[in-house]
Amino acid sequence: MERGSLILLRTHKTQTVAHSFLAASLKGISQVILIENSISGLIILAAITIGNLSLGIITLLSAMIGTWIGIAGGKDRTAAYRGLFGYNSVLTGLALSLFLSGNFRWVIALAGAAITALVTAAAMHMMRNIDLPVLTLPYILFTWFLLLSTFFLERVVLSPELVPQDLTHWRFISGGAVDWFGGMVNGIGQVYFQHRLPVSILILIAVFWAGWKLGLCAILGTITALITAYGLGAEEEMLNPGLYGFNAVLTNMAVAVVFRTAKGIAWFMAIIAAMVTVPITAGLGVWLAPYGMPILTMPFVLVTWMFIAARKTLSKI
Amino acid sequence: MERGSLILLRTHKTQTVAHSFLAASLKGISQVILIENSISGLIILAAITIGNLSLGIITLLSAMIGTWIGIAGGKDRTAAYRGLFGYNSVLTGLALSLFLSGNFRWVIALAGAAITALVTAAAMHMMRNIDLPVLTLPYILFTWFLLLSTFFLERVVLSPELVPQDLTHWRFISGGAVDWFGGMVNGIGQVYFQHRLPVSILILIAVFWAGWKLGLCAILGTITALITAYGLGAEEEMLNPGLYGFNAVLTNMAVAVVFRTAKGIAWFMAIIAAMVTVPITAGLGVWLAPYGMPILTMPFVLVTWMFIAARKTLSKI
Amino acid sequence: MERGSLILLRTHKTQTVAHSFLAASLKGISQVILIENSISGLIILAAITIGNLSLGIITLLSAMIGTWIGIAGGKDRTAAYRGLFGYNSVLTGLALSLFLSGNFRWVIALAGAAITALVTAAAMHMMRNIDLPVLTLPYILFTWFLLLSTFFLERVVLSPELVPQDLTHWRFISGGAVDWFGGMVNGIGQVYFQHRLPVSILILIAVFWAGWKLGLCAILGTITALITAYGLGAEEEMLNPGLYGFNAVLTNMAVAVVFRTAKGIAWFMAIIAAMVTVPITAGLGVWLAPYGMPILTMPFVLVTWMFIAARKTLSKI
Repeated sequence: MERGSLILLRTHKTQTVAHSFLAASLKGISQVILIENSISGLIILAAITIGNLSLGIITLLSAMIGTWIGIAGGKDRTAAYRGLFGYNSVLTGLALSLFLSGNFRWVIALAGAAITALVTAAAMHMMRNIDLPVLTLPYILFTWFLLLSTFFLERVVLSPELVPQDLTHWRFISGGAVDWFGGMVNGIGQVYFQHRLPVSILILIAVFWAGWKLGLCAILGTITALITAYGLGAEEEMLNPGLYGFNAVLTNMAVAVVFRTAKGIAWFMAIIAAMVTVPITAGLGVWLAPYGMPILTMPFVLVTWMFIAARKTLSKI
Repeated sequence: MERGSLILLRTHKTQTVAHSFLAASLKGISQVILIENSISGLIILAAITIGNLSLGIITLLSAMIGTWIGIAGGKDRTAAYRGLFGYNSVLTGLALSLFLSGNFRWVIALAGAAITALVTAAAMHMMRNIDLPVLTLPYILFTWFLLLSTFFLERVVLSPELVPQDLTHWRFISGGAVDWFGGMVNGIGQVYFQHRLPVSILILIAVFWAGWKLGLCAILGTITALITAYGLGAEEEMLNPGLYGFNAVLTNMAVAVVFRTAKGIAWFMAIIAAMVTVPITAGLGVWLAPYGMPILTMPFVLVTWMFIAARKTLSKI
Repeated sequence: MERGSLILLRTHKTQTVAHSFLAASLKGISQVILIENSISGLIILAAITIGNLSLGIITLLSAMIGTWIGIAGGKDRTAAYRGLFGYNSVLTGLALSLFLSGNFRWVIALAGAAITALVTAAAMHMMRNIDLPVLTLPYILFTWFLLLSTFFLERVVLSPELVPQDLTHWRFISGGAVDWFGGMVNGIGQVYFQHRLPVSILILIAVFWAGWKLGLCAILGTITALITAYGLGAEEEMLNPGLYGFNAVLTNMAVAVVFRTAKGIAWFMAIIAAMVTVPITAGLGVWLAPYGMPILTMPFVLVTWMFIAARKTLSKI
């Protein structure tokens, strides 16, 4: 995987890295999609900014806040210069900007980005012993708590899109056509909460910039998810915006890299992993439905941990 | 505990084991009730098959799938030949066959058995540091996610038995007579989702085959649970099919073995542990009620972990 | 922090302690508010007893039960003599006495205190590797399970105060005046479920007895929470009884001690931590609302772990 690398998944190696704060922040943006490459980060930042100027500003500021905390607080700054303190903050900044309402949300999003950097540091400590990367867990947990808090706090206002559902009166909504191309490309854009074609395509270009194999993994992940979800009978309104895709994209990329030494079965395991994300996404969605909470990248975290950890026990796969 | 042993609970010892794939698969079936004994596994398989032919086939195939993954993937195959990669797959195969509807469920059950073997491997890695056995956690987590996913996936159909309950309008259902003998025996059968007397009795015979002390533990566990649940005022429709019993059976057996060196208090601790499963079963049932999800063997996992771990801190009990 | 110390947070050090069972039990009462001081424990016991005689008796008995199990079961009895086996039992005894109804609840409360001591021992083992204190997690988990079980068990009766809420019809209740002084003092009393001024003030005196810095931390925590919660638009009926305060009090005290070597920023970090407990309290409250379960001290556990663990990664903060 030339140029970029899924350094996120390496817990031991250390390399010399350029000690530039801006490059580190841009890498924080690219690490969201498991890439350590400041140019890719810049292209993605441009894509988000084209979609929405305010969101672009929040993305850059969140990356900077997280990265700064990692650099200022850490004795070993390598992780921070690789963008590993930035990506969770970027995701919290994006998620809170999009899932909250009102102008006060920009302040909450940036404060959330700062706290997420601390949660990231805490998660790194807690997971050191079991030798698994924290992935996006810190952002997920913090964002869920904060979005839930809106019911009790009058000045933190939830977006009207997020509505608690009553499972006792659940009714399956079917019908509508599947937009295969759109659903596929949006599965990649959704990694950054984007679901408009030009923005999603620009993000895909950023992935290819970091390495053509990574780009193929992303495409393979989103296609696998789309076919699996369609085959299992998912709702079209979930398929077309790519809501089953983004977790499969991330999982496919991560598992392909982790299993890259397993010649022959690396691609097979990556596809299986991407397929497994679909029922996990659906199951998690149901678990969160009574609260109206979004799934975020939790299926990616769970399935990727499972495949990394399984390989540590079953070393021949 | 002659002939059989709760090897599941030993995390360090290794012994030579017969390297037969079929024997390993049958042991996978017996390990569900904490026994490593291929004859016991065969008797249990016969019991399930008598109850329902298709279910018997799924049980054997699930055990084989899980065991094969453990043997093919592992460098150290000892665990797989002991049936430790089989029992979680067996349980997933059984649970998905019983809690899903439609013919497609057989395919899902077998695919689920395969994925559960990977989840088992992952859980083994994650729990290595805290020195606790994975018990049935891998099957429980995977089955919950998959059953939940049915709300969002049209082709994965939930059994109409599982209905989400609204706690805000909860009403306690009382009345009906307690079937003491049936409730007691079914508490043992429910370990394999069985609640018909002849099948349950055959399973109890399989446990006695592995060791009369194990058989007594199973009986002690189900009686303790029945009396405790009755005393705390449980609903009769939960008591008679043995729904409070099976977690107590497993917990009693596991704790009795773990505390076997503590002369005198081993039986006392096992009974306390079996009693504690009752409120934990009820509490977990309430937590899952809004989703209509079954409790499975989660109370066994939680209470058994608690007693094993407590003894590592309080070494004199 | 003279006289008292947040020994709860030290996982390695051992010191000689007075080997008195009664002193150990009283320390178990004071450890609830992170203090190891038998006189403080005695003052707090008096405060609770003045409020309600039965509750005072349960408090002392629960502390004794937990402490006795720690002393009788452990090889290393240091922790037990410091009150570290008592405080979780005290909290379970208090919580079950207050959140259950009927006379049978006194029996359940004391049995619960005993089981909580085992859960505490188990949690100590499980968390040893990640080098974090168990705090009040054992009590929280056990109490939640037991309170939930009331829906399924007729003889375990929930207090009518705890009512499951339907989030799909959630309506924010606003209005009423904020009682700044009462809300502030009650935030301290609520650590022991007290919300009457004289009782709360006596508890605050007990904290000051253990050390004036600890007393200031407690006051700082409750004020920070009150202002933050008010600023974010919390409901007055949550503010006035101090329901946002007690988690902030505990978190502020714990973080101030953990960061005491970080001259200058210790107070800053403690205030940030206290502020973070507010949205976490709200978010957790919403998560538990469909079950009608109380938040207990879970926000304190989560936020304190986060700050302790973050510092282990970011050693310069």
